[in-house]
Amino acid sequence: MSTIPTTQTAATVPKLGGGVKFVHDYPVPQPGHNEVLAKVLYSGVCQSDLHTQAGVASDANGNPITKVKLPHVGGHEGVGRIVAIGPGCDDDIRLGTFVGIRFSSRICRRCEFCLAGKEQHCTKSTNHLHHEDGSFQEYIALDAGYLTILPDDIDPAVIGPVLCAGLTTYKVAVQNANVKAGDWVVVVGAGGGLGHLAVQYARAQGAIVIGIDGGAAKGDFVKEIGASEYIDFTTTPNLIEKVHEITPGGANVVIVTAASVKAFQQAADMLKVGGTLSCVGIPSEKGYLLTPISAIVIKGLHITGNLVGSLKECLEAVELVRRGVVKPRISIRPFEDLPKIYDELEKGDVSGRVVLKIAKDE
Amino acid sequence: MSTIPTTQTAATVPKLGGGVKFVHDYPVPQPGHNEVLAKVLYSGVCQSDLHTQAGVASDANGNPITKVKLPHVGGHEGVGRIVAIGPGCDDDIRLGTFVGIRFSSRICRRCEFCLAGKEQHCTKSTNHLHHEDGSFQEYIALDAGYLTILPDDIDPAVIGPVLCAGLTTYKVAVQNANVKAGDWVVVVGAGGGLGHLAVQYARAQGAIVIGIDGGAAKGDFVKEIGASEYIDFTTTPNLIEKVHEITPGGANVVIVTAASVKAFQQAADMLKVGGTLSCVGIPSEKGYLLTPISAIVIKGLHITGNLVGSLKECLEAVELVRRGVVKPRISIRPFEDLPKIYDELEKGDVSGRVVLKIAKDE
Amino acid sequence: MSTIPTTQTAATVPKLGGGVKFVHDYPVPQPGHNEVLAKVLYSGVCQSDLHTQAGVASDANGNPITKVKLPHVGGHEGVGRIVAIGPGCDDDIRLGTFVGIRFSSRICRRCEFCLAGKEQHCTKSTNHLHHEDGSFQEYIALDAGYLTILPDDIDPAVIGPVLCAGLTTYKVAVQNANVKAGDWVVVVGAGGGLGHLAVQYARAQGAIVIGIDGGAAKGDFVKEIGASEYIDFTTTPNLIEKVHEITPGGANVVIVTAASVKAFQQAADMLKVGGTLSCVGIPSEKGYLLTPISAIVIKGLHITGNLVGSLKECLEAVELVRRGVVKPRISIRPFEDLPKIYDELEKGDVSGRVVLKIAKDE
Amino acid sequence: MSTIPTTQTAATVPKLGGGVKFVHDYPVPQPGHNEVLAKVLYSGVCQSDLHTQAGVASDANGNPITKVKLPHVGGHEGVGRIVAIGPGCDDDIRLGTFVGIRFSSRICRRCEFCLAGKEQHCTKSTNHLHHEDGSFQEYIALDAGYLTILPDDIDPAVIGPVLCAGLTTYKVAVQNANVKAGDWVVVVGAGGGLGHLAVQYARAQGAIVIGIDGGAAKGDFVKEIGASEYIDFTTTPNLIEKVHEITPGGANVVIVTAASVKAFQQAADMLKVGGTLSCVGIPSEKGYLLTPISAIVIKGLHITGNLVGSLKECLEAVELVRRGVVKPRISIRPFEDLPKIYDELEKGDVSGRVVLKIAKDE
Repeated sequence: MSTIPTTQTAATVPKLGGGVKFVHDYPVPQPGHNEVLAKVLYSGVCQSDLHTQAGVASDANGNPITKVKLPHVGGHEGVGRIVAIGPGCDDDIRLGTFVGIRFSSRICRRCEFCLAGKEQHCTKSTNHLHHEDGSFQEYIALDAGYLTILPDDIDPAVIGPVLCAGLTTYKVAVQNANVKAGDWVVVVGAGGGLGHLAVQYARAQGAIVIGIDGGAAKGDFVKEIGASEYIDFTTTPNLIEKVHEITPGGANVVIVTAASVKAFQQAADMLKVGGTLSCVGIPSEKGYLLTPISAIVIKGLHITGNLVGSLKECLEAVELVRRGVVKPRISIRPFEDLPKIYDELEKGDVSGRVVLKIAKDE
Repeated sequence: MSTIPTTQTAATVPKLGGGVKFVHDYPVPQPGHNEVLAKVLYSGVCQSDLHTQAGVASDANGNPITKVKLPHVGGHEGVGRIVAIGPGCDDDIRLGTFVGIRFSSRICRRCEFCLAGKEQHCTKSTNHLHHEDGSFQEYIALDAGYLTILPDDIDPAVIGPVLCAGLTTYKVAVQNANVKAGDWVVVVGAGGGLGHLAVQYARAQGAIVIGIDGGAAKGDFVKEIGASEYIDFTTTPNLIEKVHEITPGGANVVIVTAASVKAFQQAADMLKVGGTLSCVGIPSEKGYLLTPISAIVIKGLHITGNLVGSLKECLEAVELVRRGVVKPRISIRPFEDLPKIYDELEKGDVSGRVVLKIAKDE
Repeated sequence: MSTIPTTQTAATVPKLGGGVKFVHDYPVPQPGHNEVLAKVLYSGVCQSDLHTQAGVASDANGNPITKVKLPHVGGHEGVGRIVAIGPGCDDDIRLGTFVGIRFSSRICRRCEFCLAGKEQHCTKSTNHLHHEDGSFQEYIALDAGYLTILPDDIDPAVIGPVLCAGLTTYKVAVQNANVKAGDWVVVVGAGGGLGHLAVQYARAQGAIVIGIDGGAAKGDFVKEIGASEYIDFTTTPNLIEKVHEITPGGANVVIVTAASVKAFQQAADMLKVGGTLSCVGIPSEKGYLLTPISAIVIKGLHITGNLVGSLKECLEAVELVRRGVVKPRISIRPFEDLPKIYDELEKGDVSGRVVLKIAKDE
Repeated sequence: MSTIPTTQTAATVPKLGGGVKFVHDYPVPQPGHNEVLAKVLYSGVCQSDLHTQAGVASDANGNPITKVKLPHVGGHEGVGRIVAIGPGCDDDIRLGTFVGIRFSSRICRRCEFCLAGKEQHCTKSTNHLHHEDGSFQEYIALDAGYLTILPDDIDPAVIGPVLCAGLTTYKVAVQNANVKAGDWVVVVGAGGGLGHLAVQYARAQGAIVIGIDGGAAKGDFVKEIGASEYIDFTTTPNLIEKVHEITPGGANVVIVTAASVKAFQQAADMLKVGGTLSCVGIPSEKGYLLTPISAIVIKGLHITGNLVGSLKECLEAVELVRRGVVKPRISIRPFEDLPKIYDELEKGDVSGRVVLKIAKDE
């Protein structure tokens, strides 16, 4: 293991809406008490990072998020290796171990959500999206008491997107939506970074999947990863009718990964009596769920939201990838391509997930 | 038991939006194969009957309901006694037994919903609100294969409202919302026909209840039936803040029985992370659930609707009344007051539930 | 469709413990009110039929069952075609339709279990194992109000075992045990009639399956149908240790399909903290669950039993076979082999399920 | 707050089976890094302490527990006040705060059980029953990272038994057994320390409770705390029949708090189809659950065990006491009575829970 430098390359956001700027003399953090230093090998690029640098992220009330550490380094789908161990860490933490850099960075461990294993809702938590520098830098300091320790035999390039997009869709498809073998699950945005993982986790849980996305190429991809049916929204006049044609009485579950108000509005009508609408994407504009109350009442619908997941659920999502049950589709790109990738994401040009190669694993 | 006449008094709706007209020579039905004839003793008056006679009922898509048997006799919260038994009925059906007249009148018994004990969603079912004459008449024919047989020791005047308003709120509060002892449950419209039963069923399931309604008189009533806190919307500037003041982090469950879009819109903001919004009332206008998608996702909310309940659940709701755990607040009024009662319901003047005395129990 | 004869061939049990006797002039039943007559094409052979003819069946209290219609015709995994329709049947019941002959024959439709969609527990129900003649005859009369109507595009030979063994294991693996993708499920008796379906339904629900059975041939079979691991009890000194070696902390679920007290006793020790032991087989001797209470308490175990399933669940189990997700392994044998098959079952010689060809489908 | 002495009075167990010996010069521990020192005010006396000092405690496999720190100080239902704060504690931990001394003393915070909010199953955890000195001493050092911080307005004498007996029965009755308002719950050992809390938590969750215990005095007590029915096992010839007489078809839930194999054996027969047997007590002898497998399968029973609960659940159990919903019945006794109390517990002479007054609250 080589020596640790004092400065590094980082992709910084100087101010909200200010775009990305590469800085080559960004300081390498020192691991403090009960912290480790990890070298970042790879990092996925998530829609939320795009929102932060564009200054359009919104909070639970739909108001813009303004409390962001600036300059900020994005990235919360990273995989690194421990290269230094600060004082006060547990004895079993070892140099060289793979660790994940995720959305949540620190938690209080004492609030009711931390105690319940739902620490992603910790009221005193910090995250790598707003409060701390994330994985778009070569070295990162991590809380050793809340470390995402990964198995030794994973492929670090592939695991990055599992830590956020994978975890989110795992939680929805495997844990929350109560999918039983043979249930019909519609994934809206099935070819995207979130969607292609939702398709696979739903399949892993026994669902028959209908993928909705645009264009023939996405159709091929969506079927290849396990969807039984593909609906191309660019050529299908009525998506709701189409879903009812395929399924007996409507879908059991619709997972909306497309951050569009219209996608949410149609989703409820695709459902069967008693069905579940899982909201995953967050529209950047202040979007309402335009579902008629009468439909919710008369069809006895369930509408649920999901914000990433816990560390335990993250490790379960990783395990299904490690066992080969779910295969993230990634394209590895050089670190410096980040601005270009944001452009592509905005245009919706991306199948699967883009992963940046950050630092060299020696 | 006296002889059965051939004609009777019935409160008919001659056409949609045509109001109520009393007819004194309405034919008494003959019980057909596997049917019984019941004399109707009492019947509750539900908001939905008001909608039907006013011609403003809407379906699951928010479109107006137009397929109604006309002239129609409303009423689906009735209690009667069996006075005649048609051919082909099971041997254990006996004259004199109390029976309920509920929303659902006939079911197919073979669709997936009937087989699952969710027959209120039977796709071939008929109901007393639109397809068959209900309990606002002295005699009614009922399917002996789907009979709501009530215990002998009930008070028939009190049980009527339990069969629809009671069942609906029982299902929400006891069965669906996963209420645990000590959970905070907000009931919006707590003093009304649905609301005052929701308060009591939620209490029965161990909840600490916050009732929201208007005026001091409703406040006294709501506290008397078991709410721990009352919020008067006529004098409280910010209902959402008030709920957060009282509860640690927000309510676990909000049950909206008020058929107002604004009530639904505020409800989600009253919830704690992971909380449940239960939609019970149906606004008569085409109302959307104006909840920001970001709130659903970030707070991990559950939004559920509920359409009455099954026969089994109905009998469970009745049992809690029979045991004195839940006490419907009723005011008994003469049959001919029905039009006046519709006026009072429209103005929101009614505490608890109005029950009509229909025929004399001899 | 040929004419219906008045007599037929049936495999009768003249008295409890009296073995099987073929009778060639057994009367063909006449379909009564709301009944259909079906020609039986195929029937699976279940362990319970063996118990009835051997006179060793036991009830819920472990006492011998003595109330059996005699002479009795066994068989409750049959598939037939409707060849005659009695009076009073619903209009949409059609000649030629495939129907299933299952464990439950008639239900009351009014008790709390019927109302809840758990009609297999109906207190007034009758079944084909004890109270009515089953599918080991060429023609059978069935209640048209509780008909197992099968899709037209099934293979009737394959579906028989799904109606009992398949339903039971579907209910356990897919519905009851709360299996999540990636959970470790142990199937004890994995190569048998029940077991090989349990393996596949558990796989369909996303489990990683460990099959336990005896011999290398069963091992090949068990892996072929989807188990990730096979443990041969004939060569493995300590089954419990072996399961703990393979799994992280023990199995999430153990499904015991082997009707042996010892198998049950070991099962609890294979479980992880919070794990579930699903009891499927019923030992013929009066067997106790010899699990230490301290283990149940300290490990927070769940132990559950399961008696077949409902008609709705049966159709769901069939659908997964129709879609090719689950593939029953059957060997088709002539009707007259039944006594031989009972011998083979007793010796545990059977991989998968034996299906008898009963009458010719013209 | 007075100065902290260097020695104190402690009730020690010098060796397994060696009974209790009071020591007056036992060292007062010094709070280490991230630890606090609490003065113990009150402590409940639990059956398990009796087992430890008598040397008859058994592990999950029914084998005797031999790894106990000796001499050992028992007590794991204690309430104290923070009197000193060690280095490295969070800023918001304040002198004078009430804290609980519970079964679990330290947890790893990183295993799958800690991450899931089920830290009572942490594989690296230590507890006050075997590994660390408990609340039968005047001063105790506690892990500040896993502190049971109690509200300021509790009565410290009453809360002690809630931390173990209360938590255990809360978890069973409110969280695990899925009790719905109107369900019939049988509590075996209803007048005891565990039982009288199980009665009240089950009532809080809406159950109708049948208490089983011995003698008229216990009957009066059990009814006073909310049971609807009392069955006296000293005068009732057949407990199982009696339960079936009272309930429609059997009990929904039976909670066995009596540590007797016979009590467990009868419990399953008291259940309704689909009912739940909750095992709480641990028989000191190696006891098997002598339930026939056929009963588990045919009646579709659920059998579950429960080992205390998590810190979060503990605080929920406390909150229901703080709100006056559940009222522990305690008798306060001087610290030096501990040996006498063990004798009384062994004879089953105790109604409710005995609480020792340990140190003086200045």
